[in-house]
Amino acid sequence: MSAGQGRLYVIGLGPGDAGYLTHDVEAALAEAGDIIGYAPYVARVPEREGQTRLTSDNRVELDRAREALSRATAGRIVAVVSGGDPGVFAMAAAVFEAVDNGDPAWRELDIRVLPGISAMQAAAARLGAPIGQDFCAISISDNLKPWTTIANRLECAARGDFVIALYNPASRSRPRGIRDAFAILRGVLSPSTIVVFAKSIGRPEERIIASNLAEADLSLVDMSTLVIIGAQGTRLIERGAATPYVYSLRKSS
Amino acid sequence: MSAGQGRLYVIGLGPGDAGYLTHDVEAALAEAGDIIGYAPYVARVPEREGQTRLTSDNRVELDRAREALSRATAGRIVAVVSGGDPGVFAMAAAVFEAVDNGDPAWRELDIRVLPGISAMQAAAARLGAPIGQDFCAISISDNLKPWTTIANRLECAARGDFVIALYNPASRSRPRGIRDAFAILRGVLSPSTIVVFAKSIGRPEERIIASNLAEADLSLVDMSTLVIIGAQGTRLIERGAATPYVYSLRKSS
Repeated sequence: MSAGQGRLYVIGLGPGDAGYLTHDVEAALAEAGDIIGYAPYVARVPEREGQTRLTSDNRVELDRAREALSRATAGRIVAVVSGGDPGVFAMAAAVFEAVDNGDPAWRELDIRVLPGISAMQAAAARLGAPIGQDFCAISISDNLKPWTTIANRLECAARGDFVIALYNPASRSRPRGIRDAFAILRGVLSPSTIVVFAKSIGRPEERIIASNLAEADLSLVDMSTLVIIGAQGTRLIERGAATPYVYSLRKSS
Repeated sequence: MSAGQGRLYVIGLGPGDAGYLTHDVEAALAEAGDIIGYAPYVARVPEREGQTRLTSDNRVELDRAREALSRATAGRIVAVVSGGDPGVFAMAAAVFEAVDNGDPAWRELDIRVLPGISAMQAAAARLGAPIGQDFCAISISDNLKPWTTIANRLECAARGDFVIALYNPASRSRPRGIRDAFAILRGVLSPSTIVVFAKSIGRPEERIIASNLAEADLSLVDMSTLVIIGAQGTRLIERGAATPYVYSLRKSS
């Protein structure tokens, strides 16, 4: 069976503001007949006559991926949209998991992943250059993995002196996750380690809170927050009343 | 002293193809009077009448950052350009290191970091979704850090079951780096761990080589290569003669 002229784009819309969109993403959104995704992301795509929009809840990634693959196999030009980068804790992994376990025809489809600016990059850019040395990204939501796996990764990241970006620090299923994560980090890292909460980056209510591992107020962490934990070489540049810059030394000892 | 109307953009051009450029980056390039950077990156910026272009060698990041800060302080609109994302092993860290140690007036400058699609994201998108779970990025060039630091990070990343992206796997100063790195990884990870060499991503000569930790041919690694080491949950989808897909399970045990 041929997949006809169908195509599946897996698209990253970046962190909110349209200035983050790439040319390739914009061209694909203009071409796609079907836009599929979690409702707040689909709402960011400019409406176009003749375009079908399918929204779903955030917890049904695999169903959404299968629907998109079926439509593309039937000859539609489909775009699955994510905020940030689709490859970073977003829809791309669900799409390929569906391909791996689904209709063999899906392997022959024209699937194109178009990267977007991730929340981590946008937050880093606002701060200065915190991920300017070796870094890692960890999702501390335990929807998809046991807490023991998360705890081991946090401990290894701290022992490796990585700059750490924590995604999903306030998941509904584990509101205590950020407190447990900080307890692990405090067991390894210095109390003066720089900690930044980057909230709603790229949106009008954007806010940056710089602190340290000992004093960070975890009650400020919500679902819109990306948490960045500095490494030994991470530095803060005070600027009076303005938000301080945060960067990491390129040289380390 | 006032910084006048000057401004410093620190810009990411993405991995090569113009399709990766964001709107914000394009607007800043059109506005800037001075374009400063490593020659191959400056060459990617479309020439515009009245625009000054300053190119330099890749090893002089701090000098380049100071020149850019001085010009912006004197009232120029300056853009420092990097390939990929300026915040990921590129110019942003050098700029803020210069601010931290330089003229106090530089702290009052209007500095705007504009993220770009990193080599890691572009490679991941071409492959499928290899960084769809917790991941880290490590530069194995020892220009700026001792090998013991790199070795510890590799070991911690492997013990944490992260997907690992290796930057600068063939630095001139340490051509054996990739062999030493693989020796460390082989001491911790299964021989069947998926390994991908993503070469010249976003350029016409782009090439992807999928293998595993035991069999990967390290003589294929050069300065244009990004190396991705899978985690336990990383999977390969065979597609006959076509390049296989590589993705990481969102769920892990």
